Amino acid sequence: MSESEHIAAAPPGDPATHMDNEDRLRPEFVARVLDAVAAGDVATARDLVEPLHPADVADLIELARADERDGLVAALANLVDADVYAELNDFVREDLLDEMEPQQVADIAGQLETDDAVALIEDLDADDQQAVLERMEPDDRAAVEEALGYPEESAGRLMQRDVCAVPQHWNVGKVIDYLRSTAELPDDFWEVFVVSPDHHPVGTCKLSTILRTKRDRPVSEIMVEEQTLIPVDMDQEDVALRFQKYALVSAAVVDGQGRLVGMITVDDIVHIIQEEASEDVLLLSGVGDEGDINEPIRAAYKDRVRWLIANLGTAMIAAFVISRFEGTIERLAILAALMPIVAAIGGNAGTQALAVTVRALATNQLTGSNRWRAVGREVSVAVLNGATIAVLLGLGVWAVLGSETLGLVIAAAIFVNIIVAGFAGVLVPLTLDRYGADPAVASSVFLTTVTDSMGFLAFLGLATLAGLGR
Amino acid sequence: MSESEHIAAAPPGDPATHMDNEDRLRPEFVARVLDAVAAGDVATARDLVEPLHPADVADLIELARADERDGLVAALANLVDADVYAELNDFVREDLLDEMEPQQVADIAGQLETDDAVALIEDLDADDQQAVLERMEPDDRAAVEEALGYPEESAGRLMQRDVCAVPQHWNVGKVIDYLRSTAELPDDFWEVFVVSPDHHPVGTCKLSTILRTKRDRPVSEIMVEEQTLIPVDMDQEDVALRFQKYALVSAAVVDGQGRLVGMITVDDIVHIIQEEASEDVLLLSGVGDEGDINEPIRAAYKDRVRWLIANLGTAMIAAFVISRFEGTIERLAILAALMPIVAAIGGNAGTQALAVTVRALATNQLTGSNRWRAVGREVSVAVLNGATIAVLLGLGVWAVLGSETLGLVIAAAIFVNIIVAGFAGVLVPLTLDRYGADPAVASSVFLTTVTDSMGFLAFLGLATLAGLGR
Repeated sequence: MSESEHIAAAPPGDPATHMDNEDRLRPEFVARVLDAVAAGDVATARDLVEPLHPADVADLIELARADERDGLVAALANLVDADVYAELNDFVREDLLDEMEPQQVADIAGQLETDDAVALIEDLDADDQQAVLERMEPDDRAAVEEALGYPEESAGRLMQRDVCAVPQHWNVGKVIDYLRSTAELPDDFWEVFVVSPDHHPVGTCKLSTILRTKRDRPVSEIMVEEQTLIPVDMDQEDVALRFQKYALVSAAVVDGQGRLVGMITVDDIVHIIQEEASEDVLLLSGVGDEGDINEPIRAAYKDRVRWLIANLGTAMIAAFVISRFEGTIERLAILAALMPIVAAIGGNAGTQALAVTVRALATNQLTGSNRWRAVGREVSVAVLNGATIAVLLGLGVWAVLGSETLGLVIAAAIFVNIIVAGFAGVLVPLTLDRYGADPAVASSVFLTTVTDSMGFLAFLGLATLAGLGR
Repeated sequence: MSESEHIAAAPPGDPATHMDNEDRLRPEFVARVLDAVAAGDVATARDLVEPLHPADVADLIELARADERDGLVAALANLVDADVYAELNDFVREDLLDEMEPQQVADIAGQLETDDAVALIEDLDADDQQAVLERMEPDDRAAVEEALGYPEESAGRLMQRDVCAVPQHWNVGKVIDYLRSTAELPDDFWEVFVVSPDHHPVGTCKLSTILRTKRDRPVSEIMVEEQTLIPVDMDQEDVALRFQKYALVSAAVVDGQGRLVGMITVDDIVHIIQEEASEDVLLLSGVGDEGDINEPIRAAYKDRVRWLIANLGTAMIAAFVISRFEGTIERLAILAALMPIVAAIGGNAGTQALAVTVRALATNQLTGSNRWRAVGREVSVAVLNGATIAVLLGLGVWAVLGSETLGLVIAAAIFVNIIVAGFAGVLVPLTLDRYGADPAVASSVFLTTVTDSMGFLAFLGLATLAGLGR
């Protein structure tokens, strides 16, 4: 963030006029700005927006309707600066950038730090990307091109190349003089990296340590030698977990030869953590990893219909299982009313095990060391749940429908299905993870196939065996 | 974190011997330590663990079986220091603390910063809490008691009371001299807060700014006056969103009178963001907000069975709907095989809308300004999905079962159910949020009630109306 110092400016008068107490722009404030723009009253719109932080200006643009956004951005003109673009939702930003000349996009990118510039440019299609890069300053362009050379979602794309690095033979006074006299430092930095002559990081000094140490001490005496280095090709999810685990504020990024090539700061990581955790919710629910209220309707349709079609396949298998028992159902139609209960509760129990397992895998809590213990744990919980629900449902069915056999059959079927669901809920994601697949992506389709088919099979099969409807 | 400088110590020899490339302890390493402990070879166990970061020691303890943990902790002795306890999973920590004398717990708490000490003590039951507090140093005790006076999950519990605050009339040189000569500063700090004589924060100076400024400049000239202040009673979820939105590294916490009472740093916020996003996955899946592979089986059972019973209620309603059509099903049992398809796909479509809406609400993307637009968007996607699935399923049923009427009926039913699901998926969480409830908690039960009942009703109702099975 190149201007994180420009924080939450208070509006003239009461901040309560534009923000509610959860840091959301008030609907009345948004409406007032948009009405002013619609009425051609640019001055009022600008006066209202001027005190806002770039992140709030970005929110304002997102909250406007798609057809109002171009007008709003034009009216606000320079208030929509590079930092606002950096804060914008990807889908909304892409929409706005599509309308711009390559030179405008290049100007915006040139004002951002490398990581934000890359985020801006990486989603453009190849031609537009090329056109924008050609119009950037050579230095900025080189930095962005280098970053684009690293894999998507890797440390190389997240890092900024400007770092504050000092040789290990300097003393604190020399470091302070260097910091005072050098213009090309990052806007925000919290640690100084100490490097060897061949540019390998050998230690880290927090700024507070430098500030609190006498000028004549060598940095090599006060630096912390144990440090967490981030390989430039590390996946952003792993980078985020590493920041979280070791409570890092910044970390040095190194290339394959161990040379310092950049720095990642925690403010960029906070977004990744939010994103990666959201991804699990979205993937488990079958909306793809980009599900977002700003995603264009056609894209959302494409992502979601694929999942529904996959589930249609699952449902067909279950329907086929049921169809094998048509004779039994014809003779005792109440079975048709009860069977979805067995399938649905099994599905719910499986989803519970699945959610816990997926989160444990995502946060590195579940490894080869405790894999089988986790399976045992889920099965134990399933036995308890299965017994409870079997008793409740069995007694309920007996009481309401007056058939002891039917009560026993449904109790046995749901007990079996909940236990199968517990097994599947933990084994499916573990297996996907073992073979390198993302356990959140496909596990709920597999799970539902198992719990639906098994639910219907157990219930209708036992009912047939028990001679119900004969 | 009182020792975040002690980071990722490299083990003697190759770090690859104890960590895999995703920062998880290798199962072979864990087994080697546990085997040594079991064999009474404390020296080997300690040698293996000695190079680990406290966060990794905590992982090791979590990866051990519950019945191995006491032995492991005893063998490692002082290697399991206060920082390890601060990093431990809540359930595992509670288990270990239960075995300890209040004096031991008080000693551990005394070595931690206030926020970590509070996290350690807040989950103890009232008697144990009192016993521990009585054994703490008066200063530490006062700090923890004050923090415990704030609501759970509020800024007051997250903050540390040690802050670096300077009067506005000082110059940079005086600030640096103060930092050099004062022992009681926080272990980690990244910004200096400038305060008025009545202790109101009036500005913030990043340490990098102080380092890069000549000694004779007054801090009031270099401080950033716009700053984000955190009210002491703010909910931690809102604190986290504020840190994320404004890319904060630390922020001043103020009381009701606007006086500086503490500071929150981003390393504590990173955990909250992870937790809050995980909570949505867990709540939507019905495992309560504490679902975790370390949760004791009985607690997991209690949390989950409640949800299954609620879903049993939902399933009963659906069963009742079906039972109204027993006659139709008796005459045409294939309807029983097809009806779960309509309900299941509706449920899936609703879950998609639900997930997107819950995440948008949680990240403040969805407000009064775009609420109706979000509903319109979900319904549009539902119409597209519904039309696609209706055509596929209708044609499939017609082709396989040879009944044009049945194909038309199921197509119409699933179209209706997917649209109803889209409406419910967005309206249920919006309504819960509007009335102050957490939209992730109960929305999927409501949603399933709607999609199941509506699915069966539409399909069986239309089939009956169309005279199928007559």
